[in-house]
Amino acid sequence: MFANQLALDATTAQRLIGLALTPVPDVALHAAMLHAVQGGKGLRAFLVLEGARLHDVADRAGHAAAAIEAIHAYSLVHDDLPAMDDDDLRRGQPTVHRQWDEATAILAGDALQSLAFELVCAPASGVVDAARVDLALTLAQAAGASGMVLGQALDIAAETGPALTLDQITRLQAGKTGALITWAACAGPRIAQADVAPLRAYGDALGLAFQIADDILDETGDADAVGKAVGKDRSAGKATFVSLLGLDGAKRRAADLVELACDALVPYGDRAATLKDAARFVIARDK
Amino acid sequence: MFANQLALDATTAQRLIGLALTPVPDVALHAAMLHAVQGGKGLRAFLVLEGARLHDVADRAGHAAAAIEAIHAYSLVHDDLPAMDDDDLRRGQPTVHRQWDEATAILAGDALQSLAFELVCAPASGVVDAARVDLALTLAQAAGASGMVLGQALDIAAETGPALTLDQITRLQAGKTGALITWAACAGPRIAQADVAPLRAYGDALGLAFQIADDILDETGDADAVGKAVGKDRSAGKATFVSLLGLDGAKRRAADLVELACDALVPYGDRAATLKDAARFVIARDK
Repeated sequence: MFANQLALDATTAQRLIGLALTPVPDVALHAAMLHAVQGGKGLRAFLVLEGARLHDVADRAGHAAAAIEAIHAYSLVHDDLPAMDDDDLRRGQPTVHRQWDEATAILAGDALQSLAFELVCAPASGVVDAARVDLALTLAQAAGASGMVLGQALDIAAETGPALTLDQITRLQAGKTGALITWAACAGPRIAQADVAPLRAYGDALGLAFQIADDILDETGDADAVGKAVGKDRSAGKATFVSLLGLDGAKRRAADLVELACDALVPYGDRAATLKDAARFVIARDK
Repeated sequence: MFANQLALDATTAQRLIGLALTPVPDVALHAAMLHAVQGGKGLRAFLVLEGARLHDVADRAGHAAAAIEAIHAYSLVHDDLPAMDDDDLRRGQPTVHRQWDEATAILAGDALQSLAFELVCAPASGVVDAARVDLALTLAQAAGASGMVLGQALDIAAETGPALTLDQITRLQAGKTGALITWAACAGPRIAQADVAPLRAYGDALGLAFQIADDILDETGDADAVGKAVGKDRSAGKATFVSLLGLDGAKRRAADLVELACDALVPYGDRAATLKDAARFVIARDK
């Protein structure tokens, strides 16, 4: 049920991104942007659309789902650059700067970020003005210098500084991965102009569980299944949830967070079953 | 008159950007972002605020002025990267990747783009929802894959392809510099929910004149006065308005465009005198 929905929602987001792009001859930009958004799990698009289903606004949430996938894809393209994580492989495919070149990767990432704001602001989404401006404002906050980019900057600073404490790494990850996941979970109630509190609590717990699961995969996963290099954090001597809590401790903490995420969904009753499945999947996944 | 206003408006924009940033210890990100927005001419902020004055909404235009300076600064930080134009000097100061490092420059640019959308969407701007979402949507279109980033991608593709024709270089520059200048000119009527046509015509002509003047400066300017390297296009064998039209031809074309820009302001009568001064300054400047 959840896996089928995830695939459908990822396709919806990718299709809308494709429709929003007009390729120009002799310029790799648009092909690189499409390459960057393809092959992802689509978890963030699913969270947007499932949150929207709970508020009966799924028919108006496609643009927000596409927007969060565009932001996520931009962040991966820039993170993979030689000056950042220097990765050759992403989602089982060459990274954008390997498939094309660094300049194209910088520009494709930049344009994917702009595209995300174009998508959430699009009149075609059918979302009222107040909700569109709310989506755009909160997306900018989640993505920028007090959200995702701050998390990435803290991560880079940690490479040369003293090893991080659990509090510091929790804060880092709240920015680096958590802010976008929480935004995705809250987009539905924002579109419906409803209370975001239950889905914010769900998103915050899920985002942290997701990152702990990522650290566990980096320690125990198989590069072919994961679709990117593994073991990088350990070989770089970076503090992770696994190095700080131990493998079993990290697994327990992730499971506790999934319970917390599910508890936050109580106001939605049985309708939230698919979001609960998603939370359990996040710590059971092998990629 | 115009020069004083330009300096005041640049200060307004920089102050708002500073207020929007909360520095975090041990992370260079926020200092790099502030470095990137300082020292600019502030032409785009001036265009926003002057267009707003014509529509009696200048008290609500500060956030849009700050936003366009943030987008412009982000584009310069990324353009200066080694994988792009590889410049060491910008506005007479070291470029961000020279002052800090490439990763910080990539992230500071990314976060400045997010900040721009945060600024135009900010409730504190006092702009109504419909106008804020209009500002954000049109800014995303101007900045992204069919605007500024497309122009930059075309510029890079031109380095290895056949020399560009006048039509091609005009289209390239309409994206690379024109789209943001036109957005800046139109922000005032957008905030006032008024007709953007006169200021769009002004901005389109001004943007092209500005780029021709830039090509002339690259050919004839002094690096100390300009604040960045000059003569790069000629030594790279790139087609410019000067190589295609000749120096005198380029100067005549820029002057014609300034007349066109001033003609577009007729509906505003004498109130548009400062915008006319600005257009004349653009082709008379030495930096």
